This record gives sequence, C-alpha cells and structure tokens, in this order.
Amino acid sequence: MSGEARKPYDIDTLTDIALRVFAERGYDGASMDDVARAAGITKASIYHHVSGKEALLDRGLTRALDALFAILDEPQSLEGSALSRLRHITGRVAEITLLMLPELTVLVRVSGSSKSERAALERRRSFDRTFSELIAEAQRSGAVRTDLDARLIARLIFGMSNSVVEWYRHGSSIAEGAVVRAVVAIGFDGIVRPQ
Amino acid sequence: MSGEARKPYDIDTLTDIALRVFAERGYDGASMDDVARAAGITKASIYHHVSGKEALLDRGLTRALDALFAILDEPQSLEGSALSRLRHITGRVAEITLLMLPELTVLVRVSGSSKSERAALERRRSFDRTFSELIAEAQRSGAVRTDLDARLIARLIFGMSNSVVEWYRHGSSIAEGAVVRAVVAIGFDGIVRPQ
Repeated sequence: MSGEARKPYDIDTLTDIALRVFAERGYDGASMDDVARAAGITKASIYHHVSGKEALLDRGLTRALDALFAILDEPQSLEGSALSRLRHITGRVAEITLLMLPELTVLVRVSGSSKSERAALERRRSFDRTFSELIAEAQRSGAVRTDLDARLIARLIFGMSNSVVEWYRHGSSIAEGAVVRAVVAIGFDGIVRPQ
Repeated sequence: MSGEARKPYDIDTLTDIALRVFAERGYDGASMDDVARAAGITKASIYHHVSGKEALLDRGLTRALDALFAILDEPQSLEGSALSRLRHITGRVAEITLLMLPELTVLVRVSGSSKSERAALERRRSFDRTFSELIAEAQRSGAVRTDLDARLIARLIFGMSNSVVEWYRHGSSIAEGAVVRAVVAIGFDGIVRPQ
C-alpha cells in the first residue's frame, strides 16, 4: 500500500483504532480486516505490531482496568468516611467511563469467551467487590441504608454508570460533567426532592 | 431427523429458544444453525415456521416492547401524582426485565443494524420519551429535583434497570423482588440514609 509509509503506527495508536472498531461492531463481529481498513494499513502491517485481535482487546481491557484500579489509590478513595470515599469512587468511575469510552465500552460488553476476557472479568469482579465491601462498611457506620444488599447496590450503581457507554457520544448536548454529577446524585441521593 | 416428529414446535416456542440463543451468543454471533441445534430440529423445519433470523428477532423485540407499553396503560401509570406514576412505571419496567429476561436482553443490546432493530429502537425511544416527559411533569410539580435534566434521569434510571440483563440469572441468591425494590429505591430515594 503506497500510503503506508506516511502512517507510522505504533501499538498504542493501533489499539485506539481497534477499540473504536470493537466498540462500534462488537468484538466478536469485528475482524482484523475491519481494523486494518479503519487504520488505513494492511493486515500484514498490523501483525507486525501485534499478534492478533485478542492481543488488541487485551490491551484495551488492561487500559480500562488499570484506570479503574488507579482510582482506588487516590487520596479521596482512601481517606475520609466510607460514604465520602464511595461518592468519590462512583464519580471517578463515571468520569473514566466517559474519558475512556471505547475502552470501557469493550470492558462493559466483555462476554468471557476468551482467556483475556475471563481475566478481565475477574479483575472487574475484584474491583466491584472492593466497592461493595466499602458499601457494607458505610452501612455498618449508619451512613447508607441497610434494607438493600451491598452487592446489589454495587451492581446497580455500576450498572447505571456503565449504561452511559450505550448512549453517550462526545459532543452531545449533555455535558460530561452533568452525566458524572447525575450518576452520583441519583445513586446516593435519589431524584425525589426532600420536602 | 428421526426424533423430529416428537417435537411439534410452534412459532412461539421457537421464538423462546431463539431468544435464549441470541441472549447467550449475541444476535450477530448466533446463526440459524445454533437455533436449530438448540431446538433439536433441522434448519429446514425452522424455515417452515419463520422466514429467518431477523423474523425471530423481530418477534422477540415486539414481545418486549408490547410488554413495556402495556405498563403505560395500567391504572397506576395513569392515576395519581406524577411521582407515584413514575415509581410504578420504574418498578414494573424492572419486573418485566426480570420476567422476560431473554426478550429484554435482546432489546437492550439492539444495535440498529437491521430494519427490525431500527423500528424497535424507535419504539423504545418513544417509551423513554413518555417517561422523561413524566419526570419533567414531576419536576414542575416540585416532587422531583430540578438540578438534573429529565432526559438524563430517564436514561440513567433505565440504564440501571437494563443493567440487570447483564448479571441477573434466575435462581440466583438475590430474589427478583429485591432487585425490583432496589432499582426503585436507589433511583428515587438514593442509598444515603436520611439523618
């Protein structure tokens, strides 16, 4: 391909492109031909950088999970009341979801049909477990209602946050900050106006 | 196939089987061979009942959307305050999601790549619009907080409810009623315990 010399792709740029293709067509539905077409290079050139489709997925999932786990090391995730730590983590998860939309789209839709996907699901479950343990701590401290199961709360709040990958598009009329604020506001305070 | 005479499938049973296959493998990833295998009959026998894969999907999407729209005609969706109608509709949407898990799974994941899918997306959008108009009404009446956009609230509450298709399995340790209660409780009242 004559134009190829003008496009010196590195593995990170190729991963960016592959993730957009996976997010659009679904990982199972996307082929390396699709990725090559989106990158404007030959399939052979891609295989020069990466062993295959699963390796590209694996890089995307690792990016997403590394970003999520990094949240847990932030000072506001470690200091303060369980409730304020929960609010911080929830807001940051929503932020990361919007900031890394292709990565998180692929993570949210992971089916577990390959080794990379199963490993990602395991890491994701461990993240969710940390979050639901913090909810349980906040329940014991009296800050969070105790009539709902902590794991169920974790699933539904992350379910709400994950759902933005299905409809949020950059440049939409709803600002990213408004989405993040709404996820935290609904999850923690609900929509009913206090009387 | 010798056993076929013992399995007199009708179109509704075939739709049930196809929806389970679509929910497991994804609609795009599932073939009519997969459906035939799951049904234990030949592909030719399926084509005796139905024109193809899209017709099966279309029947499933129609089931899901008919069930959702039927909620809007229930007395508790039509009478009472906007807030109580919203609570009722939200709880019933969650109930229908659990009751018709394969149908709703397929609806939630619809990509819009076929005519049936685009028609389903249009009906779903119309349902969401009705819900967000009711949220706006509840905001005007002072019952729902006005610092969040009504459409954004609708998307996030339904996003939370839709997310159950990704993790809920019948026979799980969490009862269906608890999930429905939690969706309504979190969406409307939040998880923070009133002081």
